[in-house]
Amino acid sequence: MTKVNDNYLKLPGSYLFSTIGKKVREYAAANPDAKILYMGIGDVTQPIAPEVISALHKSVDEMAHAETFKGYAPDLGYEFLRDVIARKDYKDRGCDIAADEIFVSDGAKCDCGNIQEIFSVDNRIAVCDPVYPVYVDSNVMAGRAGTYDAATGRFSNVIYMPCTAENGFAPDLPQEVPDLIYLCFPNNPTGAVVSKARLQEWVDYANRHGSVILYDAAYEAYISEDDIPHSIYECSGANDCAIEFRSFSKTAGFTGLRLGFTVIPKQLKVEGVSLWSLWARRHGTKYNGAPYIIQKAGEACYTEAGRQQIREQIAYYMGNAHHIYNGLKAAGYEVSGGINAPYIWLRTPDGLTSWEFFDRLLTVANVVGTPGSGFGPSGEHYFRLSAFGSRESTIEAVERMKNM
Amino acid sequence: MTKVNDNYLKLPGSYLFSTIGKKVREYAAANPDAKILYMGIGDVTQPIAPEVISALHKSVDEMAHAETFKGYAPDLGYEFLRDVIARKDYKDRGCDIAADEIFVSDGAKCDCGNIQEIFSVDNRIAVCDPVYPVYVDSNVMAGRAGTYDAATGRFSNVIYMPCTAENGFAPDLPQEVPDLIYLCFPNNPTGAVVSKARLQEWVDYANRHGSVILYDAAYEAYISEDDIPHSIYECSGANDCAIEFRSFSKTAGFTGLRLGFTVIPKQLKVEGVSLWSLWARRHGTKYNGAPYIIQKAGEACYTEAGRQQIREQIAYYMGNAHHIYNGLKAAGYEVSGGINAPYIWLRTPDGLTSWEFFDRLLTVANVVGTPGSGFGPSGEHYFRLSAFGSRESTIEAVERMKNM
Repeated sequence: MTKVNDNYLKLPGSYLFSTIGKKVREYAAANPDAKILYMGIGDVTQPIAPEVISALHKSVDEMAHAETFKGYAPDLGYEFLRDVIARKDYKDRGCDIAADEIFVSDGAKCDCGNIQEIFSVDNRIAVCDPVYPVYVDSNVMAGRAGTYDAATGRFSNVIYMPCTAENGFAPDLPQEVPDLIYLCFPNNPTGAVVSKARLQEWVDYANRHGSVILYDAAYEAYISEDDIPHSIYECSGANDCAIEFRSFSKTAGFTGLRLGFTVIPKQLKVEGVSLWSLWARRHGTKYNGAPYIIQKAGEACYTEAGRQQIREQIAYYMGNAHHIYNGLKAAGYEVSGGINAPYIWLRTPDGLTSWEFFDRLLTVANVVGTPGSGFGPSGEHYFRLSAFGSRESTIEAVERMKNM
Repeated sequence: MTKVNDNYLKLPGSYLFSTIGKKVREYAAANPDAKILYMGIGDVTQPIAPEVISALHKSVDEMAHAETFKGYAPDLGYEFLRDVIARKDYKDRGCDIAADEIFVSDGAKCDCGNIQEIFSVDNRIAVCDPVYPVYVDSNVMAGRAGTYDAATGRFSNVIYMPCTAENGFAPDLPQEVPDLIYLCFPNNPTGAVVSKARLQEWVDYANRHGSVILYDAAYEAYISEDDIPHSIYECSGANDCAIEFRSFSKTAGFTGLRLGFTVIPKQLKVEGVSLWSLWARRHGTKYNGAPYIIQKAGEACYTEAGRQQIREQIAYYMGNAHHIYNGLKAAGYEVSGGINAPYIWLRTPDGLTSWEFFDRLLTVANVVGTPGSGFGPSGEHYFRLSAFGSRESTIEAVERMKNM
């Protein structure tokens, strides 16, 4: 008799952002005159940079003629893209990463969700709390997380690393040694970062204990301070213990174009098995590459003009982040993040739960944010605001929040 | 201690098409003057249709302006695309499939590879032999296939359904009842099809035994004969037992653009659980949608002009198929397929194994095809040729094969 994967049934509720979307749609339907401002899902709003648009048009034209038409992409992605990534994102920062250690994909979310597949279901994972839900949910689906306890909001077999005001929202090294450690800096949702010295401690910990670090660097382009590492491979020994995920979504506004990549150094081995070879096998079997025209768009992000245009977009969003941070702080909110990340992390006022504050913000100010508790139990009484809106709507949202 | 997913280590050798690619690259490097003709991997060669190119340019321009910019796509895909699919591919053929039963994705390979995830690892799968490697390999990776026996070329826990000259390359209903049945018509690699009456027997079998059919219809656009079903939902009761996969790759030349979709009727339940809801959860958690511009390209395939241009491309490839079929038959080869599918399935001459014939064809005629044994043990002594080349190279390849 056919049976379902009952690990799926252990997931509590629906995916966080689907729930938010549903609540907002219902409110909007009941209040058609409400002018809702979105600071929730973390989707970008600025258009694609001219240099990238031009690359898209050019490559679309290539697809129109038999002589330049492109069919299936190479398994790991086109060399023109992997080469420029290896040079500009890694070699230029002193990281020893070669083009063939880079796997081009349709986004960091997919890669972060799929990477757990190449590890045993017996492995124990550690995650920050609060955390981007995909890390935990994908492990629940695989049967690696144990059972859910509604009272604590935690899975029985996951090591949670609390990120609180006390530790500056950066986790302490876990007492109990995990097999797989998910880290994300600049952090989603808290906007926290760690120094290079601190990240080196994590790399040393992983190498000492034989753990693997799954490092999500989707927001690295937002780092503004010195001494904050853009890649985990800036740390010595990381090529022996770390996989890194990158995304064009927040760097160049590709949320609707879909492009990212995963780095697995060839020397990274577990039980003597190359993780590179397992991931290559997964790519070859279950994936068929990002579209050629999107890979050409990605390449354009690394030209001189492309980089300049993208830097301006990031500066625009970071201008929003500073406006939210300063405005809410002046209004008496307790805020963090927003310096090296496009997210502001704030403590809910009046002892409200995260979802109570979500509802109040939606119904009183018509502003949509993301409840901190949706990212894990230590996110309760916190709230995430994103800086990806337009300047006008950001200013208006802060104004409305001041007057709530 | 971190452990790998050792199911991956049970996979024999590398992905079929990666192996072929490697062999061909090595031959080409050693013989730089050889004019190699490709009838192997099944990649298309005709450029994207003008109507689709125009939709791509238009939607790229939308991405260039804040007012029309698109970020994250809706979880299941854009409604404009799901609507037109539901109407033109299903309603027009009398199938009861609604737009919200369609999940847009980046291709049928990914969906065929990932779908097994929503089922228990205890489920028993049945596959045609020979078969598209992704069905088996993705189940091996999940630990559902048992162990590999190199002597038989089979996995211990898979039910193989031989497709041979005797049964017209269409499998018999299995004696031992599988939980999940992979079917693909028009078939890759054999090019075989089944009548609507025959497919109805499969649907009745699945409903009688509580099995789920995973129906790969990636080549439906190549059907030329009447009474051959384009969708499994043309059969009565299929909405209770079948999931269908479709692709734009072979229909509209999208191998390099990446677009497909999966249909899961809402009434399809296993153990009382809606498979639609499990797949929706997977989409929400591990996937972020096909690019907006690619979904607009997909929509353009359904306009009057788009359909006409695509029909002409398919007619072109089918002209190749007929040329291969007739040419090789006249030369004394034993051939099948090629009537409702872009693949010709031929018996290797002189009792050669499939790989021996591959090597002879590559080195003597400089023609690349696909060894039948790469698709399963019953494919031994067979060989697949694809009709996706240009007319000129197809004619030359057949000529060379005649003179071998």
